[in-house]
Amino acid sequence: MRIEAVDFFYLAMPEVTLEADGSQDALLVRVAAGGLVGWGECEASPLVSIAAFVTPRSHGVCQPVAASVLGERLDGPEDIRRIAALVERNSMDLLQAAHTFSGVEMALWDLVGKARGEPVWKLLGYPHAFPKVPYASLLFGDTPQATLEAGRQAVARGFRAIKFGWAGFGEGSVARDADHLHAAREALGLDGHLLVDAGQIWVEDVEAAAARLPALEATRTTWLEEPFQASAYEAYGALSKRTGSVKLAGGEGAHNVHMARHLIDFGGVGFVQIDCGRIGGIAPAKAVADYAAAKGVTYVNHTFTSHLALSASLQPYAGVEQSRICEYPAAPKQLAVDITTSHLLPDGNGEVHVPDAPGLGLDVNLASLSRYHRPVEISVGGDILFRSKAMA
Amino acid sequence: MRIEAVDFFYLAMPEVTLEADGSQDALLVRVAAGGLVGWGECEASPLVSIAAFVTPRSHGVCQPVAASVLGERLDGPEDIRRIAALVERNSMDLLQAAHTFSGVEMALWDLVGKARGEPVWKLLGYPHAFPKVPYASLLFGDTPQATLEAGRQAVARGFRAIKFGWAGFGEGSVARDADHLHAAREALGLDGHLLVDAGQIWVEDVEAAAARLPALEATRTTWLEEPFQASAYEAYGALSKRTGSVKLAGGEGAHNVHMARHLIDFGGVGFVQIDCGRIGGIAPAKAVADYAAAKGVTYVNHTFTSHLALSASLQPYAGVEQSRICEYPAAPKQLAVDITTSHLLPDGNGEVHVPDAPGLGLDVNLASLSRYHRPVEISVGGDILFRSKAMA
Repeated sequence: MRIEAVDFFYLAMPEVTLEADGSQDALLVRVAAGGLVGWGECEASPLVSIAAFVTPRSHGVCQPVAASVLGERLDGPEDIRRIAALVERNSMDLLQAAHTFSGVEMALWDLVGKARGEPVWKLLGYPHAFPKVPYASLLFGDTPQATLEAGRQAVARGFRAIKFGWAGFGEGSVARDADHLHAAREALGLDGHLLVDAGQIWVEDVEAAAARLPALEATRTTWLEEPFQASAYEAYGALSKRTGSVKLAGGEGAHNVHMARHLIDFGGVGFVQIDCGRIGGIAPAKAVADYAAAKGVTYVNHTFTSHLALSASLQPYAGVEQSRICEYPAAPKQLAVDITTSHLLPDGNGEVHVPDAPGLGLDVNLASLSRYHRPVEISVGGDILFRSKAMA
Repeated sequence: MRIEAVDFFYLAMPEVTLEADGSQDALLVRVAAGGLVGWGECEASPLVSIAAFVTPRSHGVCQPVAASVLGERLDGPEDIRRIAALVERNSMDLLQAAHTFSGVEMALWDLVGKARGEPVWKLLGYPHAFPKVPYASLLFGDTPQATLEAGRQAVARGFRAIKFGWAGFGEGSVARDADHLHAAREALGLDGHLLVDAGQIWVEDVEAAAARLPALEATRTTWLEEPFQASAYEAYGALSKRTGSVKLAGGEGAHNVHMARHLIDFGGVGFVQIDCGRIGGIAPAKAVADYAAAKGVTYVNHTFTSHLALSASLQPYAGVEQSRICEYPAAPKQLAVDITTSHLLPDGNGEVHVPDAPGLGLDVNLASLSRYHRPVEISVGGDILFRSKAMA
């Protein structure tokens, strides 16, 4: 097969707010080769990611992502890795390239899986896929009472693990944060898993983060996620030496395998969280899963958008039995729900299964998404470099 | 003052080739506030950097760069730092943001310097600016003879230091690379400084890089630059332990202060090379210069484009007397020459002086650049988000 076409569809809710909810828009990627299509999804900033695919070249190692993808041979996983290496080299100085290629790479795996009639996790070398315990990703409430109620609703829906984050956590007093943590623990009961996401709020201020450790330990929080800027490994490393039962988590900001490895080696995280929509797709995420296993660190997906992205993010560690939990977007916007025609719903045990079906195992019904479509047109020097295709 | 407008001008040579020459295009940034204008320049991928300024928001921490800049107060250096922190927070998930803001930040310093009648290096706290010994940045020739001749031409122009790089170095045999290195040394004579740029060619293959060390040591090369991918700190660290007189250099890929610090702390580089057009501008570069000085590492600018970018890249270490050399684009494309009306030419001693004039100390004659202009238009959902202004 040859890669014949790569199409991007920028979808968004009618109103995109400032809340920390990544499901408000999406960039769907459709790759066509050999009479088949594969689907993927870039995690962030649709317009900028499209621009990185079509931009005119600046020089030999600042080429558009398209230059390394269109027309390339695609006969199997080795071609996907070869194309990824081309992108890394030819788009070295194009910062956004990793985010753009992430969605393209997913689509390449989906397409190769369909061509071979195999799920992606089998193509990655896993003989079995193990179910995961989903945790609900929720924003903290405005008040501890609101946090309590949000937690109770998630428990009522069957979640045994909840992650709260953002929405002012870490910005006010230590006492305020403690009140929210105790409310979250109360909602979960004694046995539930409580996870906390600080959303980089302390940048690299180790003391500010350490001030929250007593309440995190008292509420038996499993992990404290992203206390610092994604590359502040020294701060991660310093805080990790001061924790008791709570472990540090991070990695969603990794846009290459190196960054994830550094968080493990220099940052001392206990959980490494990878978003396939940012790190360059499924193969680099699998490399991180292998590395984490060798280092005794638990791999977890990062997913806050659609079930297409969820399936892609489960593939890299589907066969790792000891990595039990997965992030599960618990309250996504309707757009994210509508992207796939079926969904990865928890079974009777409350566990989620990665599809045992070719490729990513989910169908996209593009025509039904047209109400979310934001057509893009980009021209440079009078030449139209990108014009969205119709979604019929 | 309030920031009233930020305009971008995408300039390019008529033909942009695949050679590793970053002077083939440019993204000029003009900021207006309080009746003054400041100028800056983003280093890479003009279209993508423009898109990151104007893109619709995706969520609270994936906002366009414009959201943190337009309308902000700009009364002094503290406002520049405050705005930078806003960008880092509000555009956390927008990968290209650092490259976009780099040019904006330079322009903010230029503007504040003009408002105060002070050169930027004084605003950064340096009482004196010391001249630098420029090194010519050249690509290796196709043959050792071509490398020899290119080197001799630079020496004839007065350069006492030359950096050769790219153009096949590291891709062929060890013997071929050795031939080019000896040709370069022959051109320079016994006393000249020879620097070598491998352009990430070995990705993270330490042995491939180590195989070139004997020839690098034999030709008394001062540094080996970017042997590996910008974030491959482990590979840098491993190679740095095996070198003799030659030191490792790197840092141009740093798009935040953390990355530069990691190259020093984990990568063991002897020279840290910062491009103000990528790292987020002048203030983060100054932070790296301070950090390098404390660690006994030599700071060097990375500049392969115009003299506007050169002035910006000299400011952060203008006052560091012991950092003697600077990168100096020796054979830029005419576009890069034409961006400024005057140039930082070596004096009688062959040394370059950062301007002792307000701001960045150079004028841009926009009207004269109109022949290079590539007007950009971007629309999303039928709304025009960006349309280049005329350059009259």
